[in-house]
Amino acid sequence: MQETRLDTARIRAARQVIDPVFLDTPLYRCEALEPVLGCTLSIKLETANPVRSFKARGTEVVASLLTDEGSRAAVCASAGNLGQALAWSGRGRGLDVTVVASRSATRAKLDRIRALGAGLELVDGDHEMARERAAAMARYDGIRLVEDSLDIETCEGAATIGLELVGTEPSFDAVLIALGGGALATGVGHVMKALAPQVEVMCVQPLGAPAMTHSWRMRRVVTTESTDTIADGVAGRRPLGAVLDDLLLVVDDAVLVREASIVAGMRMLLDHAGLVVEPSAALGVAAILEDRDRFAGRHVATIVCGSNVDVDAYHRWVGRGPLHKS
Amino acid sequence: MQETRLDTARIRAARQVIDPVFLDTPLYRCEALEPVLGCTLSIKLETANPVRSFKARGTEVVASLLTDEGSRAAVCASAGNLGQALAWSGRGRGLDVTVVASRSATRAKLDRIRALGAGLELVDGDHEMARERAAAMARYDGIRLVEDSLDIETCEGAATIGLELVGTEPSFDAVLIALGGGALATGVGHVMKALAPQVEVMCVQPLGAPAMTHSWRMRRVVTTESTDTIADGVAGRRPLGAVLDDLLLVVDDAVLVREASIVAGMRMLLDHAGLVVEPSAALGVAAILEDRDRFAGRHVATIVCGSNVDVDAYHRWVGRGPLHKS
Repeated sequence: MQETRLDTARIRAARQVIDPVFLDTPLYRCEALEPVLGCTLSIKLETANPVRSFKARGTEVVASLLTDEGSRAAVCASAGNLGQALAWSGRGRGLDVTVVASRSATRAKLDRIRALGAGLELVDGDHEMARERAAAMARYDGIRLVEDSLDIETCEGAATIGLELVGTEPSFDAVLIALGGGALATGVGHVMKALAPQVEVMCVQPLGAPAMTHSWRMRRVVTTESTDTIADGVAGRRPLGAVLDDLLLVVDDAVLVREASIVAGMRMLLDHAGLVVEPSAALGVAAILEDRDRFAGRHVATIVCGSNVDVDAYHRWVGRGPLHKS
Repeated sequence: MQETRLDTARIRAARQVIDPVFLDTPLYRCEALEPVLGCTLSIKLETANPVRSFKARGTEVVASLLTDEGSRAAVCASAGNLGQALAWSGRGRGLDVTVVASRSATRAKLDRIRALGAGLELVDGDHEMARERAAAMARYDGIRLVEDSLDIETCEGAATIGLELVGTEPSFDAVLIALGGGALATGVGHVMKALAPQVEVMCVQPLGAPAMTHSWRMRRVVTTESTDTIADGVAGRRPLGAVLDDLLLVVDDAVLVREASIVAGMRMLLDHAGLVVEPSAALGVAAILEDRDRFAGRHVATIVCGSNVDVDAYHRWVGRGPLHKS
């Protein structure tokens, strides 16, 4: 393949600086889901760790580098999971971490960021406004700005999931990856193309936050005016060109799914697999639900990338509705 | 310590025959639970695998031995998790597995046993009736009876969890183990006493199914006439003497908890840790809730041993009640 910004040797090296609590996560077949989905489904579970998402793989690499460089502080914008992860990674290394988030971010994520001892700055507006504010703070205070998906370490950390996926027998036919800023998709996609090129790499984004998928399809950055999705973890409006360039090299397809499918996916993962997931983590199952024929009889892996939800919202989403007879 | 039926070298050897999908499960601190519990809490998560409980560690050892011996069939009594695990382990090795269960067992467990291709025989009465029927079938059909907790392989499989617990830094002050037939407690307890004797080993059983705890306290087998608990996985009435003898050597304390505490534990694990657990898996948290002073400031590990629940019952238990404001 053409070269992305990533390098497989560096990804292997990244494993060495990531706390083992985030590595070698469960990967297993969920047979109970298979009759409904019509395909073989394996789950890579990134929620059973201290921050309940995959993001700490990346922040461990970032924080390790920052301390090696002698940095004492860092700031990031986050919908919540990156901030929580950077707070965790920074706390263990004596870094002052500030997280900028939208006032409308998932409250549970903001609470955990505070509990981990990070500074939390809330902004009006959405995640893109938080990104602007974080960049301004970094300039003004002269501290390091951690930019998810743009900073190569965030992609390398996410890519270590790919190393764990390619080492398995039997291999998958396709891997379904939640698409937001693109760190997870470029990281895992790079490893797949390098080490398991027969595996179809497919990204999934909500119809209500389609900027990166539109960009991938148009092969140029396409922004949107707003987002409208419960999948807060992937709700960006302004894709980054450098990340898109990598995505174009390692992703075979990018699809958009409806909110109802995301909710149905969350319910199925709860009822049949006993897994609490946040909306972004149900995107893969949602994609299968919307196009069963495409996956029929194939072995599909999906990365369950986070489980940070507001309890009340979660129960509203998965509540005992008519979809839910048992 | 005095010798139990277990042997640490054999437990290490057991790891070699267990499918890796069941090994090296997540072990991590759940800080979000700590303010409520008043102690440091680490979770050993045994639910993120194809059978959603720890039982396959034991059935992998059993099934491996059976196929080495040339056996073609096996029968076991089960409240559901052992049966599901033996069905999984047997299917991969060409063993004919029959599971005998109470007609009132958790339906989701019975459905999974059937889906895994095992024969399922339902009996009126409780788990002890299923044990009698399984023993009779084994005699009549001349096939191997797998007896949970009595068969040393089931204890050795469970004990591999102990090996994974003692390898961690920092160590725990106490480990809380669900107590049913005793395989998990004797297995993990043996490893703790052998390799980390400073760790307090504490068993937890429901007040509604207290036979083994009473037996441990009286230092002789005490049976009960009935059980009354939602914790189906640990609801036995007739402890086995050989297992009790081991328990007496490796367990520092055994406590009983109320049903309301089990439900509160399940809710807390769902709301603050994003974990769906079956009642037996919430016994450890329930024990902390009932005696916060005992654990205050200590580092406690608990084994989340299973997540097989009937969806409707689970939602009734954790439903938005008055305990549940957020």
